[in-house]
Amino acid sequence: MAEKTVTEEIEEEVNNGYDAPTNVNEVEVINTYELEEKAKKVVPKGGFDYMSGASGDEFTLKQNIEAWNAKGILPRVLADVEFPETNTSIIGQELKVPFIMSPIAAHGLAHQAKEAGTARGIAEFGGSIMSISAYSGASFDEIEAGLGGNNRWFQIYMSKDEEMNKNIIDEAKADGATAIILTADATLSGNRDRDDHNKFVYPFGMPIVSRYLKGGAKNMSLNNIYAQSKQKISMADVRFLKEYSDLPVFVKGIQTPEDAMAAIGAGAAGIWVSNHGGRQLDGAPGSFATLKAISEAVQNRVPIVFDSGIRRGEHIFKAIASGADIVGIGRPALYGLALGGWKGVKSVFEYFESDLKRVMQLAGTQTIEDIKHARLFDIK
Amino acid sequence: MAEKTVTEEIEEEVNNGYDAPTNVNEVEVINTYELEEKAKKVVPKGGFDYMSGASGDEFTLKQNIEAWNAKGILPRVLADVEFPETNTSIIGQELKVPFIMSPIAAHGLAHQAKEAGTARGIAEFGGSIMSISAYSGASFDEIEAGLGGNNRWFQIYMSKDEEMNKNIIDEAKADGATAIILTADATLSGNRDRDDHNKFVYPFGMPIVSRYLKGGAKNMSLNNIYAQSKQKISMADVRFLKEYSDLPVFVKGIQTPEDAMAAIGAGAAGIWVSNHGGRQLDGAPGSFATLKAISEAVQNRVPIVFDSGIRRGEHIFKAIASGADIVGIGRPALYGLALGGWKGVKSVFEYFESDLKRVMQLAGTQTIEDIKHARLFDIK
Amino acid sequence: MAEKTVTEEIEEEVNNGYDAPTNVNEVEVINTYELEEKAKKVVPKGGFDYMSGASGDEFTLKQNIEAWNAKGILPRVLADVEFPETNTSIIGQELKVPFIMSPIAAHGLAHQAKEAGTARGIAEFGGSIMSISAYSGASFDEIEAGLGGNNRWFQIYMSKDEEMNKNIIDEAKADGATAIILTADATLSGNRDRDDHNKFVYPFGMPIVSRYLKGGAKNMSLNNIYAQSKQKISMADVRFLKEYSDLPVFVKGIQTPEDAMAAIGAGAAGIWVSNHGGRQLDGAPGSFATLKAISEAVQNRVPIVFDSGIRRGEHIFKAIASGADIVGIGRPALYGLALGGWKGVKSVFEYFESDLKRVMQLAGTQTIEDIKHARLFDIK
Amino acid sequence: MAEKTVTEEIEEEVNNGYDAPTNVNEVEVINTYELEEKAKKVVPKGGFDYMSGASGDEFTLKQNIEAWNAKGILPRVLADVEFPETNTSIIGQELKVPFIMSPIAAHGLAHQAKEAGTARGIAEFGGSIMSISAYSGASFDEIEAGLGGNNRWFQIYMSKDEEMNKNIIDEAKADGATAIILTADATLSGNRDRDDHNKFVYPFGMPIVSRYLKGGAKNMSLNNIYAQSKQKISMADVRFLKEYSDLPVFVKGIQTPEDAMAAIGAGAAGIWVSNHGGRQLDGAPGSFATLKAISEAVQNRVPIVFDSGIRRGEHIFKAIASGADIVGIGRPALYGLALGGWKGVKSVFEYFESDLKRVMQLAGTQTIEDIKHARLFDIK
Repeated sequence: MAEKTVTEEIEEEVNNGYDAPTNVNEVEVINTYELEEKAKKVVPKGGFDYMSGASGDEFTLKQNIEAWNAKGILPRVLADVEFPETNTSIIGQELKVPFIMSPIAAHGLAHQAKEAGTARGIAEFGGSIMSISAYSGASFDEIEAGLGGNNRWFQIYMSKDEEMNKNIIDEAKADGATAIILTADATLSGNRDRDDHNKFVYPFGMPIVSRYLKGGAKNMSLNNIYAQSKQKISMADVRFLKEYSDLPVFVKGIQTPEDAMAAIGAGAAGIWVSNHGGRQLDGAPGSFATLKAISEAVQNRVPIVFDSGIRRGEHIFKAIASGADIVGIGRPALYGLALGGWKGVKSVFEYFESDLKRVMQLAGTQTIEDIKHARLFDIK
Repeated sequence: MAEKTVTEEIEEEVNNGYDAPTNVNEVEVINTYELEEKAKKVVPKGGFDYMSGASGDEFTLKQNIEAWNAKGILPRVLADVEFPETNTSIIGQELKVPFIMSPIAAHGLAHQAKEAGTARGIAEFGGSIMSISAYSGASFDEIEAGLGGNNRWFQIYMSKDEEMNKNIIDEAKADGATAIILTADATLSGNRDRDDHNKFVYPFGMPIVSRYLKGGAKNMSLNNIYAQSKQKISMADVRFLKEYSDLPVFVKGIQTPEDAMAAIGAGAAGIWVSNHGGRQLDGAPGSFATLKAISEAVQNRVPIVFDSGIRRGEHIFKAIASGADIVGIGRPALYGLALGGWKGVKSVFEYFESDLKRVMQLAGTQTIEDIKHARLFDIK
Repeated sequence: MAEKTVTEEIEEEVNNGYDAPTNVNEVEVINTYELEEKAKKVVPKGGFDYMSGASGDEFTLKQNIEAWNAKGILPRVLADVEFPETNTSIIGQELKVPFIMSPIAAHGLAHQAKEAGTARGIAEFGGSIMSISAYSGASFDEIEAGLGGNNRWFQIYMSKDEEMNKNIIDEAKADGATAIILTADATLSGNRDRDDHNKFVYPFGMPIVSRYLKGGAKNMSLNNIYAQSKQKISMADVRFLKEYSDLPVFVKGIQTPEDAMAAIGAGAAGIWVSNHGGRQLDGAPGSFATLKAISEAVQNRVPIVFDSGIRRGEHIFKAIASGADIVGIGRPALYGLALGGWKGVKSVFEYFESDLKRVMQLAGTQTIEDIKHARLFDIK
Repeated sequence: MAEKTVTEEIEEEVNNGYDAPTNVNEVEVINTYELEEKAKKVVPKGGFDYMSGASGDEFTLKQNIEAWNAKGILPRVLADVEFPETNTSIIGQELKVPFIMSPIAAHGLAHQAKEAGTARGIAEFGGSIMSISAYSGASFDEIEAGLGGNNRWFQIYMSKDEEMNKNIIDEAKADGATAIILTADATLSGNRDRDDHNKFVYPFGMPIVSRYLKGGAKNMSLNNIYAQSKQKISMADVRFLKEYSDLPVFVKGIQTPEDAMAAIGAGAAGIWVSNHGGRQLDGAPGSFATLKAISEAVQNRVPIVFDSGIRRGEHIFKAIASGADIVGIGRPALYGLALGGWKGVKSVFEYFESDLKRVMQLAGTQTIEDIKHARLFDIK
């Protein structure tokens, strides 16, 4: 029988139901790049391209990786280090490791356990934080089944309707969110050429935001969903979220010192440096390339979360040495989910913990605080 | 039957008549790079190589694209932006979008509708400007059939004979040109290795300049045509064109601050920064790399048009953020013409409008004026 | 018969005994890159990957080579040079050439003669130094059979048990070591992805350190061996080694001026700039990129040995021109061992001598001292 | 019949006589890179690798081309240029074009007409200079048959025996040389890996220097020939050549301002910036990268010849804009010789003249003097 063409494969996804993996098993993680290759084989094409792809020329996606290579870690020796300690805290919350789950839409593309699988992986790992996306394919209750009372932050895509936003916040608070993440760099979808080729639409609904989406998310394109969400995000929204939720608010998608300071002025409890994994404005610099100037402007007024490009322990080290307090893990966790359900997510988090510890040992740093004082080397 | 060799294919073009596409249809534009690949399949080889190729090593052609990657857009967030506005004006002419059609010779290589097809696409798009090349394969009247009274600028390649130049200007004015573009960087043809390999000659005449070409353009090489045009272009020509035409004169092909100021001194109403799409002097820098120094020298004394390398909305943004007032679209429009006649051209212009709006939204800029104040980021 | 899969090949190595080459012959060395290709064909895959591979993305491994290309040698002419002289000295020891053998574990992976083969090659070459690794697969006595009384330095991986360290030092001194090399950049194994894929374990024991390894090294992974060695290496260990051994101590794995000075302060007789051939902390700069700043800090207080990336005579020249007194040869010698036993090692050393002399002649430098005063050129 | 292996092909060259091309015809030159590809097909492998190859990693060979791309020509417009004038002069000798033939050994590898073919091509082109290499495969008389009284410079590789050198100079003067070129960067052969692989030896003798070569050059390796020539080249040799010959002496192979000034101090009438086409010290910068600093040091005290990497007219322009007075053509002329004998050489020289004129026109420079005042653009 002839192999299916790409077009047939995509059409089948839409017409016959999206066939995400279901297996639950530990995943051997030698490096996370390989996870992407392996996930490609088990995730339906439309979903895989959506997850792994980015916008435009994917220049910014590539820069997210390239940017690491502009700075070298200088291994310090004779440093008297043994059993490096990865524990830290952020906004008063204790963490076992300086990394948490970044908010990502539609985990169900990777695995039928959806966000509940990711949540359970993180809960079983312990000492980290699950970020729940407003574009989750699972409801708060479904996610709670996996998360089991563990710490969670809630990421919001705002509706054009203020009452809807209040409802969503109410629901997130009732679910136990300990912080709100306002995504500020996605007031529309990036130009995702891969999705356009695939004519990709979400194969399932989004319980949290479907209240404000005509048609309810299922079978809708990302373009359509973003367009129905709120475009005019401003400092007033930071103030609103802070006041209405009475929770710490992180502004996510910051790439300039100016906007970091504006967000802090508007009441942000933290800055989240990110370029959305290269999925929004292509032509933006690598996320890591923008971090240092931002942290120098912020001067520890509020903590900084960093994401977009974390693939190895050395990246966590470099981000913290450049001013981040913690980092967010994105695609690698989804690939773990695709390959092993919650156990796969846990494997990925364990990999990052183990790899970071090795890097800390070899770099001569005993604590996260030591990393903050490490000097990086400009590689030409 | 055996496939034709390249040589046979080229010979057939010349001997049996050049077989340009004729279909008229909308074109899906996910990105303009793909249009080039698709156009390659439908345009005869000699014509495609002429359109897509450039001079020498094509180093400058590649730099026109590479140069964008040296500067990143910094997405500004919390910017209160919705429905970005792309309207602007130049020399008192209102535009719906900050881009117009660049002058290009011989559109008939792409489509049998020739320049009339391009003109109609732009007319139907509305709110932009058609630049008519002196090396057009269609006459003013033929173009008018597509343009239907819409705004046009006329680009001149000068004859060695001043009377001829007066005749051409008279004709262009009678046709309704609202500005004259003096191409200054093409006093001879660049060394187009691809055309030399193909022994490429124009398969049709050039009604506007054939009056001063021995042999009338048809079956002539670009080398021959340029050689018969005027080499000794100087500031005196700017003054002559301004005085004789009584129209605003843009000097096109400016790549240095010095020449920008000389042109303004000679009476130019606008500067057109361009390296002719890499088709003239190979070894020149990428066009975008030269823009900022020129705009800093010009200091808004006159408006700046920029071209050579515009392929995505982000490029329009970067050019305007570096001092351009508007940009010119070149090859992508021709590829649209090849793939869908006037409708294809309109599709390409719609793509640029839509992509620019998305970039403006994601970059946090409401107006073209906002883009002019955006700060770009040096990517190493 | 079907070819063996990679997995089968690796399993066979472990189960049926590791089948290292045994031949002894001179090796033609046109360049050392080719030796790597040839060695790949004769060394069992697990062993070859272990030797040639490095950690993580192998970014640092590649930088070790790339870093050379950032600096050009400026050939000086009219320099009155003939028969350049490569002799030099370090810590009072006379050398025929400014390069010695770097300490490397487990030469038996390359050839059944193990370290005795390497030692004999160096002894027959004469006027250089054999560095014996604590992770040698041969005992001191076995190595002596090849070394025949020639000069040797002893590299130590310390045990967590101080008495064990004393025993090892006693044994090394009894064997005639004239210096101790403290490896400071390997307090754990780097993340060797290739070894992880291969599930590589050492196919033989390590007589020198097996006293402190549970299980005795044979069939142990590198991760396991390093973990059982000492992590908490500090300045106190430098002092201890100096005092207990009464030998000059080199601290190896220095990549910062700060650590160089700390080591000297703790009593080091020499600094060994190295990133362990890219095998430890991936993401570190190329070793050569760190050399100059270190030598400028050290200001000739103690001599500097440099390794990681020496593949041609020009590299030796560049290292010495940047402040190294001598350099260490690593992988190329092992490839020589694999291809020709002791004679192959000698061929490699002869190649470096000959190639360095040619470079000195063409660069216009008569002596090693002349190289130290050569000016390098920044290549952009 | 089975194709010959590379080894068989090389052996056949040596054993059965070297079978260089013999045809005489004009060569179409679209660009000189293609000539290399075409020459590869007609020149015996050993000879082609010798001519086209370089030393070591061929890093410097590649830098000779890459270096051009670091500087862009800024096309000047409105410059009133027509029919650019390429005539210039050097040491009082009038030239039609600012380029001459660089000295190259053993033209007989490219064509059976040997140096006589090259000489005739240049003579027929007219207004340039033939440089005769001491390692010529043809005698002065044989070359004169092609050169027909036209201008020639003589390049010397010195013997260790001063009387031999006097004899050679006497003979060169008798032959009519108007300048002596002392090659200073080749006191030994570079490490030509390709020649080592091929075990390349010259298939014919070298009449001019065979008097001082034991064995007479034929069937000798380059290594051997260089080793028998003089190593200890110094400022005294410049003085000797000047005094004994009473001719202007160019010192060739200068890559530093220091050596340029030393040569002038020793009496050099001109500086020849060159890295021997990347054939000597690999790891040296691209020749063009070293030119500007040298010309700034020389300050027009003596003229500068530049070679190593000239492949297009734009390169001649860039070299002159960076301080060269004229440039030398190397490999491209040999490829022309291989493809068409003397007519092929003439075609190559005509190509450079034509391409340079085009570049001058497009860059807005009427004369060679104008080029000297052109500003280049740093490309990042």
